[in-house]
Amino acid sequence: MSVRLSAPLAADLLPVAGVRLGVAEAGIRKANRRDLTVIALAEGSHVSGVFTLNRFCAAPVHLSKAHLAAGKGIRALVINTGIANAGTGEQGMAAAQTTCEELASQLGIEADQVLPFSTGVILEHLPVERLVAGLPVACADLRSDAWFDAAHAIMTTDTVAKARSMQISLAGHTVTLTGIAKGAGMMKPNMATMLSFLATDAAISQKLLDALLHEVADQSFNSITVDGDTSTNDSFVLIASGASGAPEITDTASADYATLRAAVLEMSVWLAQAIVRDGEGATKFISVVVEGGADRAECRKVAYAVAHSPLVKTAFFASDPNLGRILAAIGYAGIEDLDVAKLKVWLGSRGEEVLVAEQGGRASSYVEEAGSRIMQAEEISVRIALGRGVAAATVWTCDFSYDYVKINADYRS
Amino acid sequence: MSVRLSAPLAADLLPVAGVRLGVAEAGIRKANRRDLTVIALAEGSHVSGVFTLNRFCAAPVHLSKAHLAAGKGIRALVINTGIANAGTGEQGMAAAQTTCEELASQLGIEADQVLPFSTGVILEHLPVERLVAGLPVACADLRSDAWFDAAHAIMTTDTVAKARSMQISLAGHTVTLTGIAKGAGMMKPNMATMLSFLATDAAISQKLLDALLHEVADQSFNSITVDGDTSTNDSFVLIASGASGAPEITDTASADYATLRAAVLEMSVWLAQAIVRDGEGATKFISVVVEGGADRAECRKVAYAVAHSPLVKTAFFASDPNLGRILAAIGYAGIEDLDVAKLKVWLGSRGEEVLVAEQGGRASSYVEEAGSRIMQAEEISVRIALGRGVAAATVWTCDFSYDYVKINADYRS
Repeated sequence: MSVRLSAPLAADLLPVAGVRLGVAEAGIRKANRRDLTVIALAEGSHVSGVFTLNRFCAAPVHLSKAHLAAGKGIRALVINTGIANAGTGEQGMAAAQTTCEELASQLGIEADQVLPFSTGVILEHLPVERLVAGLPVACADLRSDAWFDAAHAIMTTDTVAKARSMQISLAGHTVTLTGIAKGAGMMKPNMATMLSFLATDAAISQKLLDALLHEVADQSFNSITVDGDTSTNDSFVLIASGASGAPEITDTASADYATLRAAVLEMSVWLAQAIVRDGEGATKFISVVVEGGADRAECRKVAYAVAHSPLVKTAFFASDPNLGRILAAIGYAGIEDLDVAKLKVWLGSRGEEVLVAEQGGRASSYVEEAGSRIMQAEEISVRIALGRGVAAATVWTCDFSYDYVKINADYRS
Repeated sequence: MSVRLSAPLAADLLPVAGVRLGVAEAGIRKANRRDLTVIALAEGSHVSGVFTLNRFCAAPVHLSKAHLAAGKGIRALVINTGIANAGTGEQGMAAAQTTCEELASQLGIEADQVLPFSTGVILEHLPVERLVAGLPVACADLRSDAWFDAAHAIMTTDTVAKARSMQISLAGHTVTLTGIAKGAGMMKPNMATMLSFLATDAAISQKLLDALLHEVADQSFNSITVDGDTSTNDSFVLIASGASGAPEITDTASADYATLRAAVLEMSVWLAQAIVRDGEGATKFISVVVEGGADRAECRKVAYAVAHSPLVKTAFFASDPNLGRILAAIGYAGIEDLDVAKLKVWLGSRGEEVLVAEQGGRASSYVEEAGSRIMQAEEISVRIALGRGVAAATVWTCDFSYDYVKINADYRS
């Protein structure tokens, strides 16, 4: 089940110069499924990453951070599904280290030029010998047109592969962006969930790439929620191979930077939204837009309070325009001096938007029929004006259905 | 459905000298149900209250706070179900004010000696004329032995009435405590939920009563969660009529204060836990005990992260000893310098306790059979040692079942 999310077509996913991908069946947790992906990068590629803040973060997260910090130039990524290698202590660190060493030896690079990623069951040990045995198979498979395969090989309980390509023009050169992501729940049952890899053959300085990554992550992957849980393995990696021939971008004031930034943002938002659309048990896709805040932080607080409320989410599942639940969530979001008399709330879908609350209560113009009609849609927006300033923030989420409980109560494969 | 919660027997609920209660069928929202309760207090009673922090708090909450602050001596409480009088603006304030004035006139007291409380659907207006018409009926019904009736009259979608009495001895005088509560969800669908009234005929100074209320509320009603939502109307009121004849308690170092404090705490914890046991769709009662924290605040953060996690709550529903979900919730609770290697986690039930995690992963002594056996119980404890200090906190919650979604997706009566 997913909300208006189509599976990608292999032909729509464009190769990115300087980036090759290979997959293998390593039998990490189950036989006969592609569970190992290697991404090899041309020399000179710039790579930037953001990772989960969970204190129980996985061994590969620790190692990826360390390898990025080492600054030797990342040349490969390796991703396994099945086992998350989180909550595995020293043995887990050793397994991730071995993975990097073995892949480095295959590719003739250094171990700290490899970023490892794992997703799957936590508290179980990675069968590192089987993973290592799969590396030569994945390396032998390295091709530039394997994004479709990679998008599928990183899936766990996602119901639809998430992948997209775009092309832009920078200084007369055609530049390609292709990205893949996996999600399912913000944190799947035992699964450590959100991974996304976005590559371009644009050339951009490391410093600007880092800044771009953080700006974009804040407005995409850090603006979604399925169930409020934060995984042990969440990672978002931005790769710029520089192989397109376009000149390196070194100035945030340049037109090229603006063009690249817009494309990276669009791709990232699309991939992040795709994760929500394929959220566990999702039947509705909901945008919570908060504006008129004193600062972005308080807008995000309100948006997340609404997006996390089990009462709001079950009301969306039921297509019930239950304004009381939305107003109550705004009320407990933590803005101590919020003046509810200045607040306005609109519900929207399919191009229609209706004022539902103002002056501390139901809007006098509001009729329940309009709310009910809007709530039938698969995509719904809640717009909240706080009347305190000019800051804004948007959070995307899904509803809370019987299937969410079913998936999470039944799951442990 | 409730977890090990028995309905009170009328004979077990003891009159509190100086406190009389009366109920009526006012037809606030539905006909033929008792939906109006008046509690009349002897002159000289001390009353203290804590209220929701929700910015969308109801009109009666505003008025109750103002009347307590006026300091004229509270002589009556009036509670209606059906309509919460929240999100109702100026009209709502006027309705609550009228309620107080009319009751005051019935009882020959001042309007600001009355505390009004409402619970029910929010965003709808209180039919104040029907409520006012019910007041003489409730006042004519005033009796000291009506706690059983009042416990039922304040229920909304609670499945079991929540009430209990205790007796203690203070300076040779028998002192009685009787309390009632209503809950159902931390915040019911459209309902504004948690109300509790605890009365004693002990005599205690206003200053000490206020301090006792805040201390007790923190360890009882402010230590429970059903779904993480905070209602617009939550209120907990402590009444000391002083009519027992026991001398007034004015010193926190006295033995009488210690005895009274212990009884009020025990009653409040029992009433708060009763609300969780009757939580929406609850099938399990869970105690999350966090110890070894640097301070109580961080212990509460961790306890609430675990108690709020939909993934943890669905695992309890499924009787699945899913340690990964508990560890992940601890990891994202917001303690930035948490050393997961020092953490220990135990699962317990029916007098048995098993170490399940230590040194950043599964405990080597842990076998899944032990976890599975514990998770079958209706009452389960999760004990978490942070290894950072000596502070501790406990939060009580329930599991997250199909019925939670069903109740909240179907509800709008």
